[in-house]
Amino acid sequence: MLNPLVRAIAVAAPLPSLGDNTGDLDRLKKVLAPQLGGVMPVVPYRRLSKVAGRFRAAGFAGAAIVNEMAGVPVLVDFLSRPPKVLAGMALDLGTTHLEATLLDLGTGAVLARADLENGQIRFGADILTRIHHAAKDEGLAELHAAIIGSVNQLATELAGRAGLGAGEIRALSVSGNTSMVHFFLKLNPCHLCREPYIPMVNAPDPCLAGELKLAIHPAAVVWFLPSVGSYFGGDLISGVLASGLDQQPETCMLIDVGTNAEVIVGNREWLIACAGAAGPALEGGVARMGMRAGPGAIEHVRIDPDTGEIRYETIGKGKPKGLCGSGLIDLVAELYLTRQIDIRGKFRPQAAGDRLIEGSEGYRFVVVEGKDAADGQPVVLGQVDLDALMRSKAAMYMYAILTTLTNQVGVAFGDLHRIYVAGAFGRHISPRQAIVLGMLPDLPLATYEPVGNSSLAGAQRILLERQARERSLALAGKITYIELNVNQEFMLRFSGSRFIPHTDHALFPSVPFFDGE
Amino acid sequence: MLNPLVRAIAVAAPLPSLGDNTGDLDRLKKVLAPQLGGVMPVVPYRRLSKVAGRFRAAGFAGAAIVNEMAGVPVLVDFLSRPPKVLAGMALDLGTTHLEATLLDLGTGAVLARADLENGQIRFGADILTRIHHAAKDEGLAELHAAIIGSVNQLATELAGRAGLGAGEIRALSVSGNTSMVHFFLKLNPCHLCREPYIPMVNAPDPCLAGELKLAIHPAAVVWFLPSVGSYFGGDLISGVLASGLDQQPETCMLIDVGTNAEVIVGNREWLIACAGAAGPALEGGVARMGMRAGPGAIEHVRIDPDTGEIRYETIGKGKPKGLCGSGLIDLVAELYLTRQIDIRGKFRPQAAGDRLIEGSEGYRFVVVEGKDAADGQPVVLGQVDLDALMRSKAAMYMYAILTTLTNQVGVAFGDLHRIYVAGAFGRHISPRQAIVLGMLPDLPLATYEPVGNSSLAGAQRILLERQARERSLALAGKITYIELNVNQEFMLRFSGSRFIPHTDHALFPSVPFFDGE
Repeated sequence: MLNPLVRAIAVAAPLPSLGDNTGDLDRLKKVLAPQLGGVMPVVPYRRLSKVAGRFRAAGFAGAAIVNEMAGVPVLVDFLSRPPKVLAGMALDLGTTHLEATLLDLGTGAVLARADLENGQIRFGADILTRIHHAAKDEGLAELHAAIIGSVNQLATELAGRAGLGAGEIRALSVSGNTSMVHFFLKLNPCHLCREPYIPMVNAPDPCLAGELKLAIHPAAVVWFLPSVGSYFGGDLISGVLASGLDQQPETCMLIDVGTNAEVIVGNREWLIACAGAAGPALEGGVARMGMRAGPGAIEHVRIDPDTGEIRYETIGKGKPKGLCGSGLIDLVAELYLTRQIDIRGKFRPQAAGDRLIEGSEGYRFVVVEGKDAADGQPVVLGQVDLDALMRSKAAMYMYAILTTLTNQVGVAFGDLHRIYVAGAFGRHISPRQAIVLGMLPDLPLATYEPVGNSSLAGAQRILLERQARERSLALAGKITYIELNVNQEFMLRFSGSRFIPHTDHALFPSVPFFDGE
Repeated sequence: MLNPLVRAIAVAAPLPSLGDNTGDLDRLKKVLAPQLGGVMPVVPYRRLSKVAGRFRAAGFAGAAIVNEMAGVPVLVDFLSRPPKVLAGMALDLGTTHLEATLLDLGTGAVLARADLENGQIRFGADILTRIHHAAKDEGLAELHAAIIGSVNQLATELAGRAGLGAGEIRALSVSGNTSMVHFFLKLNPCHLCREPYIPMVNAPDPCLAGELKLAIHPAAVVWFLPSVGSYFGGDLISGVLASGLDQQPETCMLIDVGTNAEVIVGNREWLIACAGAAGPALEGGVARMGMRAGPGAIEHVRIDPDTGEIRYETIGKGKPKGLCGSGLIDLVAELYLTRQIDIRGKFRPQAAGDRLIEGSEGYRFVVVEGKDAADGQPVVLGQVDLDALMRSKAAMYMYAILTTLTNQVGVAFGDLHRIYVAGAFGRHISPRQAIVLGMLPDLPLATYEPVGNSSLAGAQRILLERQARERSLALAGKITYIELNVNQEFMLRFSGSRFIPHTDHALFPSVPFFDGE
């Protein structure tokens, strides 16, 4: 039984007469209340005239459109007949990328899918740059307008694909990190990145789309997945919802690595989380050949250990332009497994073939020759890039986070029943490669379960299930959040992850150990 | 114990820290909830950034401003310290006149009083003309702007008198007839005057002042006394609240005559009401010397039965300009009691002195000579005026309404424990004179209890008492309303009231009966 965020409720009210002079709107509320568990719906002032006028114009019968907002039924519209499709949009509001689906709220069916680059990117690729931009005079207004513009573009595209107009979208659920939700709501984000990292709001009450100048129906309810802290957003709550972590009898873990690295461990009794900026490596920002995961980006790499032959796959199957985050991790892992780099991430010229070239900036490894590349420029990985990667938080952070968190709660990695891997990380990086690089603990591969875009999956459940909405709000209050940025133990562990896979090789028994040659 | 419509609640929240990363707004809600009966307040989107920002700027301690709206606590503002005075405005939204008080919501004390002519008068003196005007292109917008403008002017004046700015008024309760509330909310009033006379809404949900572009604080809650029907407005519900009619063990009656004549009879068990347009007589519209009850209007008249000397009182104590409704009724009653007019309302030249002049239009009675009048023009009452008065619904309507209503419920006049007389009628017209004219039943004068401006009194209680708010909403659902405009019995009774005091003199034993001389 679906309990969507917005419902079209069929009503046929007794006609007004001299013996029954109930006001139009009061009449409608009265017939609706029994269908709303006996609760009288509220009508916002901005919708009053429209609802009452349309109810009368329809002859006092048709379909009332009722939003669920902060537990209160809110009557926002009236149609002369029930809409063919009551459409809702689920949105994964990513820092880099927006991804959305359009759902039929009556059946739960997916009507359309679409995605789009976040229009805020022109103000900064990463959140921190954007937060700084927001401090400028019109900065916040620009960032807000950019994200609303992107969401509107996405909504129009989605609706078009389903043969609808954007104005026919009657609900929107938003699953995003805390900063993105601040930008979306035009809230000052300046305290998000300053100790003690406090959001302006973690759980905003739902609002109407018209208040945000969204292109969907102005009376559409906009519902936000609550966040737990500055670095633990609604997208993670979505992940918990979608994976069912909060309902597991055994202790499990959810890892979501996108722009941030976020980890949550627990079961149906307790949930503990931590998070940190994953750094730019996974976004392809470290290597000069790095790029975002768009067409032409190499996302998978294999090196034949016997011949040294390189096979790769690009996004969109076209000619390669560069390496995205997963491609970079694959490449480094393969270079290590074929012993072309050592545990410190240094090229081993004696082992590398003729793909390794020495230049003024040191060694460069040619992944793709110029003649095979999209724009004639070879795709290369330099020692400089490798050094940056080794220094960067990207590859190392993860393991340090996981260790700190499990230590904090007294759980050994081996006790984890399942590890759900969400986000870009889960989609593009194989657990095996991540283990080689020391990003994930060395556990049987069956422990790892990719959950895809769980941020979007959670947003979809929010649209359809009241229980998911209630669960998400309860979850936000139930999760204990540990701030890693000031955690001493974490800092020690972090510097311990400077080698491939780790300074303490015993932690990674399945990864071949090639010591000092 | 006051439970005002808006409260300033002192809070001192624990400071945010690395160990407590609750969002600013979530932190505030959390400390407020226990003071709101455990209910989490809702924050409207338009106030989110301000509330959270001010809470932080105040160092997480100060006073939260919480509105009560449709049963839900709505958090709308935060001040660094509790306001010296939390001010609320009670408004009697009359067709002709606005009257308002400013209350200290902490103590219930009246800080200021003010009144103002309704700025809509330029579009028509009576409601019907305005409803017709609303049908024109920009008509409704003009009427809406006019009444909002008047209320803003009144709010500014009230606040000024209390040494405050209008923006410091944090709540507004509105008690008006159904049409005025429609204009105030910019709702199409066209069905109010068409059978079966159905309002667009009887009980609008509260809104924020900013939504109506009111000059008081934009986050001030605006609360509306509910109406029962097109001709039975929130001002009458106010009257019931203020008189306590709905809590009486004995059956009582409330009569409110202003622009409309509205009557309600009942006790704590049941309440039955009816209403009708009172016609223009009571607004001074019948006699050519008639005027609204403003400075220079004669409001009381006595004629010495021996000497024929006339004594009068004017509003403002200045020289007379004309007669207002109560002056007219006084004059006609006195003329009858001194036998200068007969039971059909015809002048009796043989009894009248030299004040009676015969001209081309028949007899004219000089109330005030030109030399004593404000503008040199004598104040006169012509036979034409008397005829119009006798024909008009004004004087006769009342008794027909009262009879029809009591008949309908099987109550004799003598069974009425008390009759509360509200509105202009109660303030300016003495029950004795009204009995002489056959407007009120011939009961002991002690039965009649003037209740003053009960519309304003009710609005004040709404500002201060939750119980009054709940009672008013329950009342609107409890009152049975009878539409007189289509009531056969009423029409018969109405024509029976063509004489002074009545065709059936036995109904008015205390009034001397001067039959056919």
